[in-house]
Amino acid sequence: MSLTIRLHITNTAQLHSTIKKCHYSTKFKTKPIYHSNPFAPFLLIHKEMASLSSPSNKGSLVVKSSLIEPDGGQLVDLVVPEIQRAAKISDAETMPKVRLTKIDLEWVHVISEGWASPLKGFMREDEYLQSLHFNCLRMKDGSVVNMSLPIVLAIDDEVKERIGVSNNVALIGPNDDLVGILRSIEIYKHNKEERIARTWGTTAPGLPYVEEVITPAGNWLIGGDLEVLQPIKYNDGLDHYRLSPQQLRKEFDKRQADAVFAFQLRNPVHNGHALLMNDTRRRLLESGYKNPILLLHPLGGFVKADDVPLDVRMEQHSKVLEDGVLDPETTIVAIFPSPMLYAGPTEVQWHAKARINAGANFYIVGRDPAGMGHPTEKRDLYDPDHGKKVLSMAPGLEKLNILPFRVAAYDTVEKKMAFFDPSRAKDFLFISGTKMRTYARNGENPPDGFMCPGGWQVLVKYYESLQAEDSPQKQTVLSA
Amino acid sequence: MSLTIRLHITNTAQLHSTIKKCHYSTKFKTKPIYHSNPFAPFLLIHKEMASLSSPSNKGSLVVKSSLIEPDGGQLVDLVVPEIQRAAKISDAETMPKVRLTKIDLEWVHVISEGWASPLKGFMREDEYLQSLHFNCLRMKDGSVVNMSLPIVLAIDDEVKERIGVSNNVALIGPNDDLVGILRSIEIYKHNKEERIARTWGTTAPGLPYVEEVITPAGNWLIGGDLEVLQPIKYNDGLDHYRLSPQQLRKEFDKRQADAVFAFQLRNPVHNGHALLMNDTRRRLLESGYKNPILLLHPLGGFVKADDVPLDVRMEQHSKVLEDGVLDPETTIVAIFPSPMLYAGPTEVQWHAKARINAGANFYIVGRDPAGMGHPTEKRDLYDPDHGKKVLSMAPGLEKLNILPFRVAAYDTVEKKMAFFDPSRAKDFLFISGTKMRTYARNGENPPDGFMCPGGWQVLVKYYESLQAEDSPQKQTVLSA
Repeated sequence: MSLTIRLHITNTAQLHSTIKKCHYSTKFKTKPIYHSNPFAPFLLIHKEMASLSSPSNKGSLVVKSSLIEPDGGQLVDLVVPEIQRAAKISDAETMPKVRLTKIDLEWVHVISEGWASPLKGFMREDEYLQSLHFNCLRMKDGSVVNMSLPIVLAIDDEVKERIGVSNNVALIGPNDDLVGILRSIEIYKHNKEERIARTWGTTAPGLPYVEEVITPAGNWLIGGDLEVLQPIKYNDGLDHYRLSPQQLRKEFDKRQADAVFAFQLRNPVHNGHALLMNDTRRRLLESGYKNPILLLHPLGGFVKADDVPLDVRMEQHSKVLEDGVLDPETTIVAIFPSPMLYAGPTEVQWHAKARINAGANFYIVGRDPAGMGHPTEKRDLYDPDHGKKVLSMAPGLEKLNILPFRVAAYDTVEKKMAFFDPSRAKDFLFISGTKMRTYARNGENPPDGFMCPGGWQVLVKYYESLQAEDSPQKQTVLSA
Repeated sequence: MSLTIRLHITNTAQLHSTIKKCHYSTKFKTKPIYHSNPFAPFLLIHKEMASLSSPSNKGSLVVKSSLIEPDGGQLVDLVVPEIQRAAKISDAETMPKVRLTKIDLEWVHVISEGWASPLKGFMREDEYLQSLHFNCLRMKDGSVVNMSLPIVLAIDDEVKERIGVSNNVALIGPNDDLVGILRSIEIYKHNKEERIARTWGTTAPGLPYVEEVITPAGNWLIGGDLEVLQPIKYNDGLDHYRLSPQQLRKEFDKRQADAVFAFQLRNPVHNGHALLMNDTRRRLLESGYKNPILLLHPLGGFVKADDVPLDVRMEQHSKVLEDGVLDPETTIVAIFPSPMLYAGPTEVQWHAKARINAGANFYIVGRDPAGMGHPTEKRDLYDPDHGKKVLSMAPGLEKLNILPFRVAAYDTVEKKMAFFDPSRAKDFLFISGTKMRTYARNGENPPDGFMCPGGWQVLVKYYESLQAEDSPQKQTVLSA
């Protein structure tokens, strides 16, 4: 009698757990006879073990896999094929309309390109509850994908009433254009207090995304399957930076990357950032990778008012590459279209998960990712170490290699950014984002070696323009 | 060449997911030849499938398994063997002391008997963060157990300082007795706001457990491995009801239960409760089970001030069995020693998970489990349907059969508690806990058939005693 089992193993955690669950013969632990064994599961497990140990494990990194599958196995793409567009448009004309805010549209962008794969639309209640309570979704096959942020669309009573018993709605963009369709909708209560408390771990007033998005939103959430009529564009001169996960994966293939390490940021790149990105590349090379590619991936959606705007950041990032601080040959700069929630350990999971879908198999995480000051108390909102701890334990992220980095600071002896050495703490200067902005705003220079001169000039110019715009009187007084 | 694999399958979700991952030959779906097949995994899978479909699937229940393994595979028991006690006591004398509150001691009780298996002590930070963010813990083998409530011990600055660099601490009970030892301790920050927000989904003032336990607690949490010198006893005349998970499992075996269905409650049992417990038993019998046992499992730890106290509830439950509303032959009444958090969908997972460890493989869940009114707004704190939804999707609870129940209400036509029939909604009267307490307090009788007379008298007596104690003047005026 013959039976065939194929264990479909997609990541190492699963592999390890499967192996542990199998009390396999000791022979299995030994080598080459299994190559020729026609019995599929061992062959497959063996193959995976082979890819585990190659490239060589000489370096300090525990290497989990080379490139990485999107969550759910397939990258979601919700842009309607051009040939169906006309039919969809006339279809949408008969549907009740739901108007999107600018930030709703950013989420439409995110969902439609598959950053949130396997999510195929705004969340229905089952997905919302799993996201809120478990930071992950269980798939039909029992596997788990990470999903730490509720990706939801709010509507108010009046819109809900207008939708009535309709099964589908048309989505209208902030410029009155038809953006897409939400099908097989489900409308459920938007308990804002609970959403905020479970996402941010606080309900204190002054959370930027809450004030901008949630507080003014309606008391209902509407979920459903999304269709987008055409790729979302912003026409702000930066669309060429907005590579979809599919485009990024193609680009990594084209460059024959054997490792992709993503760096999420919403601030200008200083030499401390550059140090750790270059150091990561060095470690990956030492581990045996031949062509690790850096995905420098600034967040492009909503940010709080005192963050540096996207166009200025993109110009600054260009200078950093022009000045040779990062190597253009092994770096891809692209925009991550998500809005920023400043939700710390909860949000950093989203940042990492979305990069899995974009094809990155290494993710760099630093101090207090997606964090900010507490809005009403004089302290960080999150413990600065919780982000990397939570990330390293998050369900559904087992297949991603998390690279926690050491803090870089300005070494006043060496006169450059360096990894902080606690044995001579007094030699180091920590230059926070606020401090950096203060330098730039006051036209002061930061210490030599903090940032490349080209990049710094972009910031100075930006803050000068702000002062010129915002306080002409003050400007006059100062220059007088 | 011969290889042996044994897939150790402990629950149906895992089985299903394993089967889905295996593209097995169609023959595998057919019958008896596999019984004699010496190839272990299929035999095992087949056995599990057999237990799946037997007892017969005639009834409406999807039956997942007969009895159930404790989380982590082994029931935790942290009571020191008597022979080691003296040595442990002299050991503890050298350690810094941490004083426990009454509720801390309830948690010591819970942990020591294995209700929270595989937890072996108060949570360290890794466990705390996973519980807070994911409602579950990942085990070393990659499997996941549910753990929705942080089970933590708080200390203040002064105690932290006193502990210094000690690795172990002695735990001192509220009566100055040595309760146990916490070993290999870890001290980490107690961010109360975040803990409250993520556990309750609100930070509104007035949450009973928060006001009683968290607000007055210190700013540090101390985790470690627990050892308890002897079983926790309360000497309140109710200790014989406090069966440990191990004792319950033995009792189920003794009664030769082939299904155990747990009913968690913190209120007197009315005939609506009884209806659904009896109806559950009927459905289990119809599904082919021969001897389903009900675990009537009132919560015995901290409850809010206006809940009926434990001794009164236990007396009421006794009467319900005496009056024959529930069958003593097939019912076990025992006390669940956990405190009550009133944390709705987050807490109901804990209630269910602890009953897995006690050997129950069916869990009854109703409307708004572990819920309460919002402390500052005029609404339920939780959506009454979220509890059962969250429970049915919770990681680590896949192996438990969740039985959501229909709402029972007083049928004014039939003059008894009955499942609510929306087609004749006007015939039904909903008698809330508050309404019930009002009846009892005012010496009024609820409608006939709401509760058995013996049980009702227990409540009336209790509320009379309250009035006699609390407001002698008012009492006098009323009786005048």
